[in-house]
Amino acid sequence: MDVLQAVSQTLDQVKAKKPLIHQLTNFVTVNDCANVTLALGASPVMTSDPAEVEEMVSFASALVLNIGTLNGQLVESMILAGRKAAAIGVPVIFDPVGVGATALRSAAAERIIREIPLAVIRGNMSEIKTLAGINEGIRGVDSTAGQEQGEAVAQSLSKRLGCVVAITGPVDIIAQGDAVRHIENGHPLLASVTGTGCMSTALTGCCCGVANPFIGAIAGIAVMGVAGEIAQQSLKENEGLGTFRVRLIDAIGNMTTQIIQKYAKIR
Amino acid sequence: MDVLQAVSQTLDQVKAKKPLIHQLTNFVTVNDCANVTLALGASPVMTSDPAEVEEMVSFASALVLNIGTLNGQLVESMILAGRKAAAIGVPVIFDPVGVGATALRSAAAERIIREIPLAVIRGNMSEIKTLAGINEGIRGVDSTAGQEQGEAVAQSLSKRLGCVVAITGPVDIIAQGDAVRHIENGHPLLASVTGTGCMSTALTGCCCGVANPFIGAIAGIAVMGVAGEIAQQSLKENEGLGTFRVRLIDAIGNMTTQIIQKYAKIR
Amino acid sequence: MDVLQAVSQTLDQVKAKKPLIHQLTNFVTVNDCANVTLALGASPVMTSDPAEVEEMVSFASALVLNIGTLNGQLVESMILAGRKAAAIGVPVIFDPVGVGATALRSAAAERIIREIPLAVIRGNMSEIKTLAGINEGIRGVDSTAGQEQGEAVAQSLSKRLGCVVAITGPVDIIAQGDAVRHIENGHPLLASVTGTGCMSTALTGCCCGVANPFIGAIAGIAVMGVAGEIAQQSLKENEGLGTFRVRLIDAIGNMTTQIIQKYAKIR
Repeated sequence: MDVLQAVSQTLDQVKAKKPLIHQLTNFVTVNDCANVTLALGASPVMTSDPAEVEEMVSFASALVLNIGTLNGQLVESMILAGRKAAAIGVPVIFDPVGVGATALRSAAAERIIREIPLAVIRGNMSEIKTLAGINEGIRGVDSTAGQEQGEAVAQSLSKRLGCVVAITGPVDIIAQGDAVRHIENGHPLLASVTGTGCMSTALTGCCCGVANPFIGAIAGIAVMGVAGEIAQQSLKENEGLGTFRVRLIDAIGNMTTQIIQKYAKIR
Repeated sequence: MDVLQAVSQTLDQVKAKKPLIHQLTNFVTVNDCANVTLALGASPVMTSDPAEVEEMVSFASALVLNIGTLNGQLVESMILAGRKAAAIGVPVIFDPVGVGATALRSAAAERIIREIPLAVIRGNMSEIKTLAGINEGIRGVDSTAGQEQGEAVAQSLSKRLGCVVAITGPVDIIAQGDAVRHIENGHPLLASVTGTGCMSTALTGCCCGVANPFIGAIAGIAVMGVAGEIAQQSLKENEGLGTFRVRLIDAIGNMTTQIIQKYAKIR
Repeated sequence: MDVLQAVSQTLDQVKAKKPLIHQLTNFVTVNDCANVTLALGASPVMTSDPAEVEEMVSFASALVLNIGTLNGQLVESMILAGRKAAAIGVPVIFDPVGVGATALRSAAAERIIREIPLAVIRGNMSEIKTLAGINEGIRGVDSTAGQEQGEAVAQSLSKRLGCVVAITGPVDIIAQGDAVRHIENGHPLLASVTGTGCMSTALTGCCCGVANPFIGAIAGIAVMGVAGEIAQQSLKENEGLGTFRVRLIDAIGNMTTQIIQKYAKIR
């Protein structure tokens, strides 16, 4: 089965199985993450209190950890939920938002990587390079190095951690060990709406709830890229970022395997 | 006065009196709850710090408690605000989101029911059946039982707690003791947008700020159902969940007594 | 250079420099504040944990403090971030949401004013009058006094605190000592969407990241007023508050110096 068929099957499975996706995420984009989860056909639960995350994740098909607005208690909740998920075979998807910017974020990311077996890490080029540096015990990895280095970094980090590593950007890179896929969808407007990275991670969580992590990451990220293109193409005169964001949810909710097979550029 | 006239009068009163509705709610849908409150003509305040909730609720016309994203401090704030509300005659509307899913939620709901005199409880079938079980000291009430049992459960819980009990679903059931009303509005798309249940509770809060709890719950839930129908009917080709959510707020903001009298199916 | 030219230059500079705007704000409107920041061309970071705010603000071009949903820890974070900002010359913009409503808010506002050198305070008439009263040690300033008193209050508070004071309302008043500007843009619908005040403060933060506080406040508030007019004028039959809010973001994202120079009524 080729990758496009596997992605299509994954989207069909999300709609058929409606997996529960437990997301410990930031308070800026939490509503958007819940809405894209519903739009794809899955079911979101966003609770993060340490007193209930272990119980809640036991009903879930995937767990998403996003450190966009971190605090000490939230890290504890992430560790509790992550360990429980690992113990019962629920895949964990990690979004290291802003890692490297502060000591708190780097320490949290380091702890999550060390203590929780991850299925997928999804970040931008700078975040993934920073993670690679943390993991090697080297600070100050050059986060401005070009796209061409991204593939090597993603493969290397993937092998070391034994998980899928996805770098999203103008061309997305998804690596599982030596295997690599590139996705050439999306639109620059996506960078001007808050939370589109978080939403990609949420969609990846939905897909990992019904497919293996490599296909799950490819599917989730491809859906966001194709939806971004459809949303941008729909804009009429005087419409802009507010309308783009609404149409993005429209496009995710209206995504079909036909649309993915027509527009997704996965190689 | 028949129920439709009472509902119409309630909507007029919300616009005339602009009641302040204090809402201790979850961080996923809090923005939507504030916006539907404003759209109906009321005024929202969403503060939840234990240091100020008693002072704040003393200015309010209704208090909404929603346990969607619970934590220990928030439960304390809910108890403080709820006791103060009860002491000064401010009606309390309770939304037991996800009760039964975790021990934390069940314990919080039990404490709220025991310690605060409620005006209205609004939940889905599963939540209300779980509450009925908690209240009887019985765990594991069958939450999958059909719609036909809902009416009996709502009436029974209403009598036991002395408050209005509203179950929303394909057909909404609102019970005050033996008195029961059914609302046959709404659209399945409402279940694919996060927070539409929370928004129904917020609208119920607005209406309970100017009317008795039975009419308040009927009015708030009827507005959401009719707005859902109007929003769905407005969708054009390629529009979907994002646009539906925007039009839902449009429809709530544009709701008139004429529209309610034409479309509301309350029996 | 006249004020309109200075405002135009400020908007161009925001797009050219993409300043990072650190915002410690409320959980109701945080997503909207991030989105208007991006729409204007700046870059938002909304983290508020005391363990990282000092480090984060050191990368920022402006700091926004908004007490809409206050709690004890958030006040500590605001003090930490504010002191660091002051120490390194990052301008601090303060939005005293709901000050006067509770003792917690008044105490927090008093402490922020006393401990942090502010660049701009932006609030509504009632909030600014309350602040003026707190600052004079007088409680119970008449917050219902008319617009005509606003100018004197803004000038007086500006002189006493040595910062720009902006009162937004039907006619906005921006004072820096004796210098005062009025802006006659905006639309009443802005008051029916949650967070438009918070968004004005966020836009002011963006502009203060590249301009002096007086021009920054005028520019940020003028953009919101003009965008409100454009959004309202775009509404078609049956469209309402939901669509208005979307078009508001559209208009902020599509704002040009030509549009500002054509529509802004600054005197």
